[in-house]
Amino acid sequence: MTLLNKQIKLAKRPEGLPKPETWTLEENSLREINEGEILIKNHFLSLDPAMRGWINSSRSYIPPVQIGEVMRAGTVGEIIKSKNKSFELGTFVSGWGGVQEFTISEGLGFYKVDVKKSPPERYIGTLGMPGMTAYFGILDEGKIKKDETVLVSGAAGAVGSIVGQIAKIKGCKVIGIAGGKNKCDYIINELGFDGAIDYKNENLINGIKRNCSNGIDVFFDNVGGEILDSALIFLRKNARVVLCGAISQYNKNPIGPKNYLSLLVNRASIKGMIVFDYADRYKIAMEQIEKWIVSGEIKSKEDIYEGIENFHEIFLKLFNGKKLGKLILKIIK
Amino acid sequence: MTLLNKQIKLAKRPEGLPKPETWTLEENSLREINEGEILIKNHFLSLDPAMRGWINSSRSYIPPVQIGEVMRAGTVGEIIKSKNKSFELGTFVSGWGGVQEFTISEGLGFYKVDVKKSPPERYIGTLGMPGMTAYFGILDEGKIKKDETVLVSGAAGAVGSIVGQIAKIKGCKVIGIAGGKNKCDYIINELGFDGAIDYKNENLINGIKRNCSNGIDVFFDNVGGEILDSALIFLRKNARVVLCGAISQYNKNPIGPKNYLSLLVNRASIKGMIVFDYADRYKIAMEQIEKWIVSGEIKSKEDIYEGIENFHEIFLKLFNGKKLGKLILKIIK
Repeated sequence: MTLLNKQIKLAKRPEGLPKPETWTLEENSLREINEGEILIKNHFLSLDPAMRGWINSSRSYIPPVQIGEVMRAGTVGEIIKSKNKSFELGTFVSGWGGVQEFTISEGLGFYKVDVKKSPPERYIGTLGMPGMTAYFGILDEGKIKKDETVLVSGAAGAVGSIVGQIAKIKGCKVIGIAGGKNKCDYIINELGFDGAIDYKNENLINGIKRNCSNGIDVFFDNVGGEILDSALIFLRKNARVVLCGAISQYNKNPIGPKNYLSLLVNRASIKGMIVFDYADRYKIAMEQIEKWIVSGEIKSKEDIYEGIENFHEIFLKLFNGKKLGKLILKIIK
Repeated sequence: MTLLNKQIKLAKRPEGLPKPETWTLEENSLREINEGEILIKNHFLSLDPAMRGWINSSRSYIPPVQIGEVMRAGTVGEIIKSKNKSFELGTFVSGWGGVQEFTISEGLGFYKVDVKKSPPERYIGTLGMPGMTAYFGILDEGKIKKDETVLVSGAAGAVGSIVGQIAKIKGCKVIGIAGGKNKCDYIINELGFDGAIDYKNENLINGIKRNCSNGIDVFFDNVGGEILDSALIFLRKNARVVLCGAISQYNKNPIGPKNYLSLLVNRASIKGMIVFDYADRYKIAMEQIEKWIVSGEIKSKEDIYEGIENFHEIFLKLFNGKKLGKLILKIIK
């Protein structure tokens, strides 16, 4: 029996927000797997802001997705055929499966996940790239110390929510920036943040002043634009800005942070990070985060939508604020 | 005999470039010195871009100069009266003497300089704040390694010229950005830079591409604005931007570097530096730079103008490009 494989491919490079015509949905027959290969049935796929960057043609940390290629995405799925001794039938694996129902691979970059320990979708969220980004971003890049003040943008998101919770575990004062009352209530009441700034309903500068009266030691930025510019004003001496993302800037010509001279007078830094650089320590971080989830110190929230046909529409939720926690597309029916 | 002391005081805070009315020139009688005090006859005073920041009212790394106060400036001069056992008559000292002919001080912040070893004006230039900034900026902040590519803006200036020469000593490829053919010829032919970009006569991006074909490892920025923005495009992985100054931005509302997301994809950093943080190691740096001057590996160029009455006009040379090397005002007649 030949399996059919629904795939989302990049049809044309978007300017600004992706449009329906950015993508094509194809249904193709799956070929047989060769010696050394595995066939994975993808259950969940990860929707990340970084994906917007991957469909630009410009030089970046990773080659751009080419026109006509299956859109790159992190996935978690089950091995349903295997001609590779390293991968057993029935095992769940996470890796770069792409936006498609099935993936044929030699296994490169795929690693086994234990779905008895944690639900599969968590391995592309808090135990996957976003969780790793948060862990290494706030600890290795942010170098947080007890009693420091940490400001996080995109605080209700997949990365920001974990950043804030780790900073709380480490004894920091943690303030989050998020859009809307629901998200702000969530990060304070559910995640234990010390304060929240609702950028949709409060002047940012007033909000930061109100919450960070002694200034900011670490700003973890997922958003950029006016949020970054406002945070710069409040940097303390030797402050660190962890530049993780700039979701407000991905769909337009970016605006530079005009208050960047605050870095000079405060001997502060902005440093970019790419989580892949920490790949050799993912295992340590995953084990630690799993422990924190078990102990209740970290809450992991997945916001799951269904259907590969809805990829375009669900992907846009990354940019219109209409999701809470890690955005995931369920592929398996 | 009562001495008269000509002083330049801050009359009003400027918007944009200082104007003649920013300053007042007064001539006041000097009082007698008290027990513990010294009287210094200032010979030379240092004109630095940072002085523009000191006359803004905004929060910075140093208190703003108040309206009616003598303008702050680094000086070198001779002790002509002393009631302080730590300071002998006839000794030359450098410190914050201010824009005036004579300074009365308890000696705090003044240190003795040996005018037999080096000419006095050099102690406010290559052996003073600009030299210290260059030394710690390129070595401790820039963390240059042999064979790296270093780009320096304001390359013919007091700091940039020393930055580039130190980077050459350390085995780097060094490219300078400067305004005009004279300055570009100077940094290549006199200072031994590997290349120069004349930002007044060449497209910056083309110039950087031409000179830094493999990208930039360290960008030492004294200028900001379009120069910073262009350099960001060419950062290599793990590049460091040393944010030392932004002379193009001091007299207007600063423009942010819109290409700052290059920091993200290249895991690069921008970090601000203030030379005062290295005060406990100035002595080491001075001794090293003196050795390099003696060996001919560093050339120190002072651009000296005369007359405290001309302070306003000479100060503007920092911003209109009409000087080469360290700008100094000779006070003594």
